[in-house]
Amino acid sequence: MQSENGQVYLTIHDGIGEIVFNRPEKRNAMNLEMWRDLSQLVAMCATDAAVSVVLVRSADPSVFCAGGDISEFQTLRKDAVTNLAYNRTVKDAVLGLKNLAKPSLAMVSGLCIGGGTEIAVACDLRFCADHTRMGIPPATLGFVYDVAETKMLSDLVGPSRAKDLLFSGRLLHAAEAYQMGLVDRVFADRLLLTETLNYIRLLLNNAQNSIQGCKGIVDALNAGARVDDPRLKQIVDDALDSPQYQEGVRAFLEKRRPNFKKFR
Amino acid sequence: MQSENGQVYLTIHDGIGEIVFNRPEKRNAMNLEMWRDLSQLVAMCATDAAVSVVLVRSADPSVFCAGGDISEFQTLRKDAVTNLAYNRTVKDAVLGLKNLAKPSLAMVSGLCIGGGTEIAVACDLRFCADHTRMGIPPATLGFVYDVAETKMLSDLVGPSRAKDLLFSGRLLHAAEAYQMGLVDRVFADRLLLTETLNYIRLLLNNAQNSIQGCKGIVDALNAGARVDDPRLKQIVDDALDSPQYQEGVRAFLEKRRPNFKKFR
Amino acid sequence: MQSENGQVYLTIHDGIGEIVFNRPEKRNAMNLEMWRDLSQLVAMCATDAAVSVVLVRSADPSVFCAGGDISEFQTLRKDAVTNLAYNRTVKDAVLGLKNLAKPSLAMVSGLCIGGGTEIAVACDLRFCADHTRMGIPPATLGFVYDVAETKMLSDLVGPSRAKDLLFSGRLLHAAEAYQMGLVDRVFADRLLLTETLNYIRLLLNNAQNSIQGCKGIVDALNAGARVDDPRLKQIVDDALDSPQYQEGVRAFLEKRRPNFKKFR
Repeated sequence: MQSENGQVYLTIHDGIGEIVFNRPEKRNAMNLEMWRDLSQLVAMCATDAAVSVVLVRSADPSVFCAGGDISEFQTLRKDAVTNLAYNRTVKDAVLGLKNLAKPSLAMVSGLCIGGGTEIAVACDLRFCADHTRMGIPPATLGFVYDVAETKMLSDLVGPSRAKDLLFSGRLLHAAEAYQMGLVDRVFADRLLLTETLNYIRLLLNNAQNSIQGCKGIVDALNAGARVDDPRLKQIVDDALDSPQYQEGVRAFLEKRRPNFKKFR
Repeated sequence: MQSENGQVYLTIHDGIGEIVFNRPEKRNAMNLEMWRDLSQLVAMCATDAAVSVVLVRSADPSVFCAGGDISEFQTLRKDAVTNLAYNRTVKDAVLGLKNLAKPSLAMVSGLCIGGGTEIAVACDLRFCADHTRMGIPPATLGFVYDVAETKMLSDLVGPSRAKDLLFSGRLLHAAEAYQMGLVDRVFADRLLLTETLNYIRLLLNNAQNSIQGCKGIVDALNAGARVDDPRLKQIVDDALDSPQYQEGVRAFLEKRRPNFKKFR
Repeated sequence: MQSENGQVYLTIHDGIGEIVFNRPEKRNAMNLEMWRDLSQLVAMCATDAAVSVVLVRSADPSVFCAGGDISEFQTLRKDAVTNLAYNRTVKDAVLGLKNLAKPSLAMVSGLCIGGGTEIAVACDLRFCADHTRMGIPPATLGFVYDVAETKMLSDLVGPSRAKDLLFSGRLLHAAEAYQMGLVDRVFADRLLLTETLNYIRLLLNNAQNSIQGCKGIVDALNAGARVDDPRLKQIVDDALDSPQYQEGVRAFLEKRRPNFKKFR
């Protein structure tokens, strides 16, 4: 699974866990095995202390992911009953990514459809190339987009844009995806990787307890937690008692860059 | 009511139910009778199998709707008590549109104020001409925008932009309305109808069970339903057991366009 | 405190309560005393009938506010325990502003970081100069942004953009802040004050009961109130029984501008 010959593989370097889609002959269409592998790779990123930030990308810049592998649908997902098992596997991967404590970023380049958009939307952030096209096609296939994924989408772009995408199944260009908040940044193709890594380095230099704490609070509020939830206050308090905070304030007053890396 | 002489009328063709405002001498200002008619026309669209998509528009491209007919306010809506009946009629129309199971689109061209914006915002989507101007004027009249309508507006543009519109009563140009998400698409005047019908045809070619299922889920989540609500899961499951889904997957694998029209 | 020699002062004129930051030698970094003063000035605006709209700004157009005064953090906010008192003072000011019944607007020009962004986001609206740069740096200091402030931010720009800002601590230019909804309007530097005052005059000419009612409803819905909450319906009903509403409708029918100022 770790090998670069896999259809999805993980490579870890410099604090980054890169999960890479690599099934070019099928434009990275996700079959059940790939969903299962994705789950496991996300779980490995969660536990491996060498990973601070997760980057999800394709080995092939012309396509991020063409969606679920529909050739499997007539056997593995032919009705509501078989969908139970199929869906559980997809959900494990998507929610694994969504619920990861560490920050995640999808670098999207080229076609990004259905399951591809699902994966990208489950990440915290989405940076894309200017030639990217994104869409969500269930209405062209006769099924209904899953509830958890619909909520993620609607939280991101609002109910009206979510309906536009889901009703029509149309493909958006990068500029429109950016305008509606479906992606967070658009770069010229040749700059995408550099700019993405620059941004990730920004995160790697920051205090990871702070990043993870902020992520936990944003996600909890989004899932309906109340502002006075004591578990959220605890996250804030824990950080104020942390050595990272001591280092951050000291570095500021000494007019030097903080060194948070020793606290990983 | 069906006649094209009415102040609001319905015309059905090619799967589209067009609800048309037609009171040009008053710039389509909505009197109580028009609100009542609108309710009934929406109800007809809901039950008529010949209607798959509802399009709300004006007979006159220079004005979508100038708002409520304020000349009636001194008699029919002169205080909180009389407003009970007045408001119930308006609410029937607006919530009828909002709660319609079928997808709805407002094609907005020219002036769109108060009740006009209320109607447009109750639709799933809003396409507008580049010369459109939109606003919500209760603060210039001394009353407070209704709660349900305030929620629809705030869900669409966020709390801050909702306050800007409601505090000031100012008229937005199409570009600013688009930037803040109040409208979903802006077209040059002469392209608005063509582009709107092109988009509607996209929806008409898709699976209507899927579109209606997605709409139901987005709206339920927006109204506060939980992600694990079993009624929402049921919508997803029903679609996976549908003949539309069989047709969609088969067509994809046979590399042909699906034919969903036979399932209406 | 009222004196223009204070580090934060209040000046009232023409219905506007201007709260002005004035600690130029520290780029308006907020020390505990300034947070305390801000609380009191907001409370004065709340009760003073001469104030209809609150404008928060800096005496120095090159900097709105550089954030909390970090030189105090090693003594007054050195861990979770000392933060209790520190935070209560900050919260009093921020929530005082947030919960003010009257409309508030932050006019942001120049640098706006951390506590500065916190104050701006607690206002109903944010107008900024085109050279403004905004950011929220807790991840560069090792602490976690407070829960209530995280919710305000996420409500404004959505969960994904909130994470981008909080994870990276990066400074946004005005154009990007506008694109994501962090500010509501961007003006050339030399036009900012004029345009802001023009907008405020628009609000001052409108019915204040209507503005305050709309604000109360948007904020209550945002805090999780239900659409059928009887307290929100009461706000709508009260306005329909108000003399402002009588005047508004009468003025409309008499084709004259309403005079709401007599009802203050």
